[in-house]
Amino acid sequence: MGDLPREDNSNTLRVLVATDCHLGYMEKDEVRRHDSFLAFEEICKIADEKQVDLVLLGGDLFHENKPSRTTLVKAIEILRRHCLNDRPVQFQVVSDQTVNFANLFGHVNYEDPHFNIGLPVFSIHGNHDDPAGVDNLSAIDILSACNLVNYFGKMILEGSGVGQITLYPILMKKGSTNVALYGLGNIRDERLNRMFQTPHAVQWMRPEVQESCEVSDWFNILVLHQNRVKTNPKNAINEHFLPRFLDFIVWGHEHECLVDPQEVPGMGFHITQPGSSVATSLIDGESKPKHVLLLEIKGNQYRPTKIPLTSVRPFEYTEIVLKEETDISPNDQNSILEHLDKVVSNLIDKSRRNATSRSELKLPLVRVKVDYSGFMTINPQRFGQKYVGKVANPQDILIFSKASKKGRNESAAVISDAERLRPEELNQQNIEALVAESNLKMEILPVNDLDVALHNFVNKDDKMAFYTCVQHNIQETRSKLAKDTDGAKFEEDDLILKVGECLEARKLYKFYNL
Amino acid sequence: MGDLPREDNSNTLRVLVATDCHLGYMEKDEVRRHDSFLAFEEICKIADEKQVDLVLLGGDLFHENKPSRTTLVKAIEILRRHCLNDRPVQFQVVSDQTVNFANLFGHVNYEDPHFNIGLPVFSIHGNHDDPAGVDNLSAIDILSACNLVNYFGKMILEGSGVGQITLYPILMKKGSTNVALYGLGNIRDERLNRMFQTPHAVQWMRPEVQESCEVSDWFNILVLHQNRVKTNPKNAINEHFLPRFLDFIVWGHEHECLVDPQEVPGMGFHITQPGSSVATSLIDGESKPKHVLLLEIKGNQYRPTKIPLTSVRPFEYTEIVLKEETDISPNDQNSILEHLDKVVSNLIDKSRRNATSRSELKLPLVRVKVDYSGFMTINPQRFGQKYVGKVANPQDILIFSKASKKGRNESAAVISDAERLRPEELNQQNIEALVAESNLKMEILPVNDLDVALHNFVNKDDKMAFYTCVQHNIQETRSKLAKDTDGAKFEEDDLILKVGECLEARKLYKFYNL
Repeated sequence: MGDLPREDNSNTLRVLVATDCHLGYMEKDEVRRHDSFLAFEEICKIADEKQVDLVLLGGDLFHENKPSRTTLVKAIEILRRHCLNDRPVQFQVVSDQTVNFANLFGHVNYEDPHFNIGLPVFSIHGNHDDPAGVDNLSAIDILSACNLVNYFGKMILEGSGVGQITLYPILMKKGSTNVALYGLGNIRDERLNRMFQTPHAVQWMRPEVQESCEVSDWFNILVLHQNRVKTNPKNAINEHFLPRFLDFIVWGHEHECLVDPQEVPGMGFHITQPGSSVATSLIDGESKPKHVLLLEIKGNQYRPTKIPLTSVRPFEYTEIVLKEETDISPNDQNSILEHLDKVVSNLIDKSRRNATSRSELKLPLVRVKVDYSGFMTINPQRFGQKYVGKVANPQDILIFSKASKKGRNESAAVISDAERLRPEELNQQNIEALVAESNLKMEILPVNDLDVALHNFVNKDDKMAFYTCVQHNIQETRSKLAKDTDGAKFEEDDLILKVGECLEARKLYKFYNL
Repeated sequence: MGDLPREDNSNTLRVLVATDCHLGYMEKDEVRRHDSFLAFEEICKIADEKQVDLVLLGGDLFHENKPSRTTLVKAIEILRRHCLNDRPVQFQVVSDQTVNFANLFGHVNYEDPHFNIGLPVFSIHGNHDDPAGVDNLSAIDILSACNLVNYFGKMILEGSGVGQITLYPILMKKGSTNVALYGLGNIRDERLNRMFQTPHAVQWMRPEVQESCEVSDWFNILVLHQNRVKTNPKNAINEHFLPRFLDFIVWGHEHECLVDPQEVPGMGFHITQPGSSVATSLIDGESKPKHVLLLEIKGNQYRPTKIPLTSVRPFEYTEIVLKEETDISPNDQNSILEHLDKVVSNLIDKSRRNATSRSELKLPLVRVKVDYSGFMTINPQRFGQKYVGKVANPQDILIFSKASKKGRNESAAVISDAERLRPEELNQQNIEALVAESNLKMEILPVNDLDVALHNFVNKDDKMAFYTCVQHNIQETRSKLAKDTDGAKFEEDDLILKVGECLEARKLYKFYNL
């Protein structure tokens, strides 16, 4: 981290880094429906003002896998107003663009002669806007087709078993500065975790060493979108799995703003975790001030500057333990209500005191986590009614919890909250139980595949999920049969036997192949 | 219809007219999934080759109200490849563009300095891609936000009762030729029908008379998307309702290709009905060759040139009456099967003979309408199995009908087929019955509004439908109360009475206000 002179930009690549904008979050809520768009608009404005070379997004640009028309239109409008202008783009992409950008056009958006792109945006997908359906398209592919976003890091899974992926960096040059940008769109944590532990499963392509310089002349950035918090190590990516040649990592998915780059001891790289630009979960981590990062790279040095987002709705969070409060008694519900009222009013006052000129008119989000051990809970909806028009979330100000058996363990509580950020996993027992109950004999479809299809159908609004699942399995069975028999005909009984073998063979690696 | 010299284009506005492209139709069908896109691609290619000034679409560009990611991406890709180029646009839009194009940008797409638009596309919406949801957005709004389509004809309904709409034409000038283009996106036929019969409910704005010329120097075009076939006159638009100052009408929605302009006696205008570019209903009307229209306008003369679409999947249709066939007997199912086999094989042969070089590799659509009076039906799925790989629709080659009591009435049969093109109306009894059965007392929501909400929720995948309905009615009730009481306070009993009156007042005109 050197001292870069502020004036010399001809050799400095200037990147605005943000993540998890969750466009369309709470779009049905009358108070909060614009929040995600206002924050994204602010990010684009900062990029304009700071005259950065590019914007880098770490996934979950969209909250819904299949965003509504309104969300798509608003996203396109914001990007169109900020990305299209006459400002010249001052860096070059020198890698094979058809490999980096897997759309029909196969080039970085500002090189298209029919668009005046002045602010190029690069994004990977997250777990919310990941590719789905027969054509494996993400909502970001729509923005990519419009030439508004450079979508990268969509992995092609090769091989069988746990599979293999190859990361081809986008090679950027600005003056004497060379940046290799690796993108890794979200993959299910369990799977990526296992791949990282399998030799050669994750291939990192490195830029060729030029005659005049060393590989080390490239500044290597990785942007990924995975669990970082290690509640369950199988469900998070260990920073130590990442290769040491990396210089800088942009970690998406985690919503808490830890934007100041942290060094990972012994690995030689720094990690920034910008956090979401909109709170999608009313937990402590989301109540910290939201920021984006201005990253200035010159040679193999960089300077990080964190920039606060001022359009974000104020969010005040606190935790209380009823039995530790002296002014209430378990037998007097009124004393509890009065106490909670005082707590909430104080948070509203605090939010007003902190208000900046831009956000002061906004109703704040308020969350009180109440440890009610030894007390009765009260109805949070009814409690919230008097705060309509005073807070943005009257219906869920209060959340009740009980102290764990071990007593009140701070770190455990934080982890359990962080867990709420993640989409719930499908309970695999459900389909298995259904198959067992109905006495179904599965001859071609593995139950795991049906689980994934159900997940995609329900959570990703992927109406083709079951069709895709069936087609895929029929196709695999056919190929396997054709291969095994090599054109020879065989009897019907043999065929049934073979089909069964195919299913078993696929089941074996399906466990990893989700 | 004069003799325009082919060479002089500087005063001739050249328009390619097409409609009902239904992008995404049958996107789950392995054989037919690309059909709608191939036809649209061909339309765009024709526009390129003919170097037209603009493309005019008559609605239902999309088949689904909420198109899939795949459909959106493909539509954007096709438009981007054909509309963006360096060819100069040679006409001007001289009307108030913020009125014509109601998006955030408020101008015709080729005037945006950041896009090289060489082929401007203008489209109204149809009944499939009509605006819906809280923000009243159509899928075409997404293309409009991307600057790929000039979406017009989205009506703003004003006033109460049947309501009032105002049509502001897009005024186009090319050399000495002046064209006023009126767009009327789909409105429910019953409603539009009633508006046309209500004085002043439909306002047609006319271009101002310039000092040097008369109003008649404008060539007036209307593009609309409504039922034209008069099965039930309330459900179709009568051509005689349209104003006589119009010169030319592009009629969308009807899928049969009747592209040659027909004069409407006594009205002074001609109508072209290009028909759909993809068959969405296997009826006789859709089996006719598909065309688009090249419309060349100079002064107040025009020349129509119909252009066949060669990429369209062949479709052979016939009707047979079993009891009129001599080689079959009611007691011998085999003789029926053999006869039907012969008919289908002949249609496949016929389709091969007609094949052009481009479409000859395509499996044909085949439909045989069988009048089975006096015979048993056979299972169409089983019948079709042997045609897998030979026709595009093996599962529904056969459709069975019985002669009506009046005997076999040609025109009645045709009308009943045409009816199948239309989405089925919601049975209003269902919600009314539900409300009655549950003994619900509706105090704010009119049942009709709930019907519309249910319709939008189910058929348009509009998840906000009920929310919108409730919000709208609460808002109306509030405004009415505020107005009636003029700020004075009143008792709770009065309030309930007043709310009831509001509901009754709204019910009265809701019948027309769907």
